[in-house]
Amino acid sequence: MNDCIIGIDLGGTNIKAGVVGLDHAVLTHRSVETQAGGGFEHVFGRIVDLCRELLDWAVAGGHRVTAAGIGAPGPMVHKTGVVISAPNLPGWNNVPIRDRLSAAINLPATLENDANAAAYGEYLAVASGGVRDMVMLTLGTGIGGGVILAGQLWRGSFDNAGEVGHTIVVPDGRPCPCGQRGCLERYASAHAVGVRCGEALAAGAESNLRSVWQARGEVTAKEVQEAAQGGDALAARIWDETCVYLAIACVNLQHVLNPQLIVLAGGLIAAGDALLAPVRRHFAERTWKAAQDAPRIELARLGGDAGIIGAAALAQIAA
Amino acid sequence: MNDCIIGIDLGGTNIKAGVVGLDHAVLTHRSVETQAGGGFEHVFGRIVDLCRELLDWAVAGGHRVTAAGIGAPGPMVHKTGVVISAPNLPGWNNVPIRDRLSAAINLPATLENDANAAAYGEYLAVASGGVRDMVMLTLGTGIGGGVILAGQLWRGSFDNAGEVGHTIVVPDGRPCPCGQRGCLERYASAHAVGVRCGEALAAGAESNLRSVWQARGEVTAKEVQEAAQGGDALAARIWDETCVYLAIACVNLQHVLNPQLIVLAGGLIAAGDALLAPVRRHFAERTWKAAQDAPRIELARLGGDAGIIGAAALAQIAA
Repeated sequence: MNDCIIGIDLGGTNIKAGVVGLDHAVLTHRSVETQAGGGFEHVFGRIVDLCRELLDWAVAGGHRVTAAGIGAPGPMVHKTGVVISAPNLPGWNNVPIRDRLSAAINLPATLENDANAAAYGEYLAVASGGVRDMVMLTLGTGIGGGVILAGQLWRGSFDNAGEVGHTIVVPDGRPCPCGQRGCLERYASAHAVGVRCGEALAAGAESNLRSVWQARGEVTAKEVQEAAQGGDALAARIWDETCVYLAIACVNLQHVLNPQLIVLAGGLIAAGDALLAPVRRHFAERTWKAAQDAPRIELARLGGDAGIIGAAALAQIAA
Repeated sequence: MNDCIIGIDLGGTNIKAGVVGLDHAVLTHRSVETQAGGGFEHVFGRIVDLCRELLDWAVAGGHRVTAAGIGAPGPMVHKTGVVISAPNLPGWNNVPIRDRLSAAINLPATLENDANAAAYGEYLAVASGGVRDMVMLTLGTGIGGGVILAGQLWRGSFDNAGEVGHTIVVPDGRPCPCGQRGCLERYASAHAVGVRCGEALAAGAESNLRSVWQARGEVTAKEVQEAAQGGDALAARIWDETCVYLAIACVNLQHVLNPQLIVLAGGLIAAGDALLAPVRRHFAERTWKAAQDAPRIELARLGGDAGIIGAAALAQIAA
């Protein structure tokens, strides 16, 4: 019997889950639609069904599942395992997901912030190289973040540490649904790249993206990045500004936490070196010269499995 | 014999030192001019003389001194006890102050960043109230910072964590001697308040401070704050902007570290509630509404002894 853990990565679009070994290797994984519109009980049922499918798989293969860890969006209380609210999951208000899940599958369960779980998963992938202090920024619809200090997930006094997407990079800047102005995620999330380009087009800027924008009413970050590489001046400006804001966020993390490594993850990193190279260049130009303490900046290695691996590993620690 | 520790707070203007009990009470303290212009050996001699005076005092009183801790400015390597450089201390380049001091007074010694030592001292003053996670900003000539997480000083991978004064609050903002642009300390240090007001006067702004400024060529933060309270419109604008930048820094610390408490210290807090009240108000207006995780914002309690107490306590931990 090999002991293993179920890791679950709950998103607004998909529920991903897998059986993860104590060495953090994913033995098998599955993904189903979240069907978030169905509300809490519907989504919870889908999570439980997925877990039972994985439990059956494990038993058939001679594995013993000892715990389950779930990474979920939204403000939550880690200690009590309650999701307070989740913008992309209607009806998830003060739901005791951890205890409900534990009772349904008869295993100890833990609840983590999804960005924290993904950051911890990525940390495990780099820890063998000597990294102990790391921050990960997940650049998707919003910007999530996770902080690993001295090899441990840092949750903060209120379980909301690492919300780097809501640090203010422009005083009195763009309004954010969170209630602030000038949040990083209004400038440098995948969503924000498309929005900012769309606004410039609406204001009359010249660009090869105009026909796409007129046909569909929006442009994607991928389209902006590709147009930028193709020499489109508007797209190049929007993309470069995005990289500047990310570089500023990295400078600020350098000075507050002084980590060895900052990892960029999420949809935006599909751009690869077209993202990483300018972020590194702007960082080098903008960081101080007073000390040699610049963190390395790298792209995430694990891709879609980071959340599953991290949620499982954090459940393993708690067990 | 009561065991105690010598704590030293080395600044560009004064060297402060004291004998501190294991309960963090200051038994006696002294302050002498640094005479920084004399160079490293001169200043080092003054530190040693001060320590010997305190050792004599301790022996005469039946105390046993077991270690010494020194808080010093500038980038440093905590593990090796070497100050790399210190802008206000000419000649302090790669000086092994810890080992030199240890040999001179025949006691184990430790070296800390001065802002870290002061933050740890303040932490000890609030820890009994249940605080475990705290950030302190010292608003003086520059802005120093110290981060306490789970009751421990967080130094970071390169011993430069907590340099909140060099987080960027204005992209492409005011140039900073550190090599960056838009650093918090260019906007919200005591020095910056005077500089920003002086620039506005030079540009022709109307203000009751004009005569002071013309006579002396500069104005102080204290004069700006008092003029603001007296109804001077320019001074009120400069002071309020200062409080806005500090509030933004607090929002950013909230989201990255999620501490229970942010403490403001240093010369600028002589303004008392005229500083604290607007910082709290701007913070409340500018922080998110997505979660109830706002840190308390308070003024430092210990005043000038924080650095001595913190340096001694950190030496005690290391011993």
